[in-house]
Amino acid sequence: MRPSAEERSHEEPHNSPQPPSTSAKKYLPTGFFSGYPTRLTAHRGERRPGSDQGDVQNVARARQVRAEITRQAILDGAAVAFDLGGFEGTSLSDVVRNAGVTKGALYFHFPSKEALARTLMDEQLLIAERVPATDDPGLQTVIDLSHQMAHGLRTDVRIRAGIRLVIEFGSFTHPDPTPYDAWIDTCRTCLTPAQQRGDIHPSLDIQDLSTLLVGAFTGIQVTSHVRTRRQDLHTRVTDLWNFLLPTIVPPQRIALFHPTGTPGTIPITSAH
Amino acid sequence: MRPSAEERSHEEPHNSPQPPSTSAKKYLPTGFFSGYPTRLTAHRGERRPGSDQGDVQNVARARQVRAEITRQAILDGAAVAFDLGGFEGTSLSDVVRNAGVTKGALYFHFPSKEALARTLMDEQLLIAERVPATDDPGLQTVIDLSHQMAHGLRTDVRIRAGIRLVIEFGSFTHPDPTPYDAWIDTCRTCLTPAQQRGDIHPSLDIQDLSTLLVGAFTGIQVTSHVRTRRQDLHTRVTDLWNFLLPTIVPPQRIALFHPTGTPGTIPITSAH
Repeated sequence: MRPSAEERSHEEPHNSPQPPSTSAKKYLPTGFFSGYPTRLTAHRGERRPGSDQGDVQNVARARQVRAEITRQAILDGAAVAFDLGGFEGTSLSDVVRNAGVTKGALYFHFPSKEALARTLMDEQLLIAERVPATDDPGLQTVIDLSHQMAHGLRTDVRIRAGIRLVIEFGSFTHPDPTPYDAWIDTCRTCLTPAQQRGDIHPSLDIQDLSTLLVGAFTGIQVTSHVRTRRQDLHTRVTDLWNFLLPTIVPPQRIALFHPTGTPGTIPITSAH
Repeated sequence: MRPSAEERSHEEPHNSPQPPSTSAKKYLPTGFFSGYPTRLTAHRGERRPGSDQGDVQNVARARQVRAEITRQAILDGAAVAFDLGGFEGTSLSDVVRNAGVTKGALYFHFPSKEALARTLMDEQLLIAERVPATDDPGLQTVIDLSHQMAHGLRTDVRIRAGIRLVIEFGSFTHPDPTPYDAWIDTCRTCLTPAQQRGDIHPSLDIQDLSTLLVGAFTGIQVTSHVRTRRQDLHTRVTDLWNFLLPTIVPPQRIALFHPTGTPGTIPITSAH
């Protein structure tokens, strides 16, 4: 039996809480949301006036809310530091200074720089939440995911830090295939029904295609970052789809797909 | 006027020597070989017995050969260290220990860790030398280059260190588009005549295609490294070409190209 949230906050302060169940994401692979941050709304309860138990519960809730605010501040501070300096170039002192918390608070939530890095590396997988068409996954879902990730990289320091850490820390310093495998699983989970309904040539190997997409996207965003500070990232991602779609999709279906992402789903300001 | 090699060895010990001119590589972009290491055979001279001047010259040559041996040992030691620890995780003490040289010798050749890193980052561009069909560049030249780079990553610690540094140091710590731009230029230089002779659809933008290829390869080798320690790298590179060639090449010409590389040009042991 799993301990309650309160018990866990004392016994396992360093583990990420489990994700809330979201039926719209049921097609996503197990473990996909392992890094899901606690939401402040997760333990909303009713106040019972005059009840000692209610007061105790409220104090406990207030403490939990404060702890979560601290935890998020630490992750924000860490994201700024990792985005700037990478894993090796960041110290816990940088994080404490950026976050405006004590070293004790930092250690209560994260036992090490590695634990912080792993939480941010997991968080980038949350981008999948921002894609609307998740109840009926298909090829366009993957196209939209790639543009949402591009948008996240351009606008969200936590996404940027997560990807830098995945590439540096998770590929070289402490090689860990988990983030790559999770994205490949997500692609396969979307592309398998796409192939079943005839949007993808029946002869194509979906696992190979998913592996190619994740590998290609990884490098395309690196080169866009270094060459243009990601100014051309949406254009480069659109190129990837324009070059791949004629091989992937039967000719009579190709007009159904938007290589630039489903219109209206990506904020227009970022669609360079 | 440029100083002679001897003058440079005293006045500019930290600059990389210029590459020897190789007519077969004349189509490659200017600056492509800026990191070309001095070859030990570059200053072979004739001994004139009984001549004082000959003795002086021989002493100078012997000194130069020793200096070059030291320089190569330093680069080998640095490559092992950078491949293992990346830029931030490597100290000059690691390099000195790996190379078996004194700190003074290290500083004579390279003023800083950054200078060492930049030399190794430039060196990976030399892989283009290993592709035979360089006098008549075309689409197959780029395919062969991608497999030669894959082979270099699997077998050569200096290539591995160079690529890790390009991705970490040259993309995040000190963003520098030079290596990416050099590879994009190389692709464009090969693909432009390919398009002129009808091997590539006339409507395709060669600059966009070259940018896509370099970006995609960059990420494909990262994911192959972290997921399989590059065991599947040739397979993944072949996938890239299998997915792209139907979009790039007119149907009646597609059989002319080998997505696995020109048969016989990649050592068979590495063609996983």
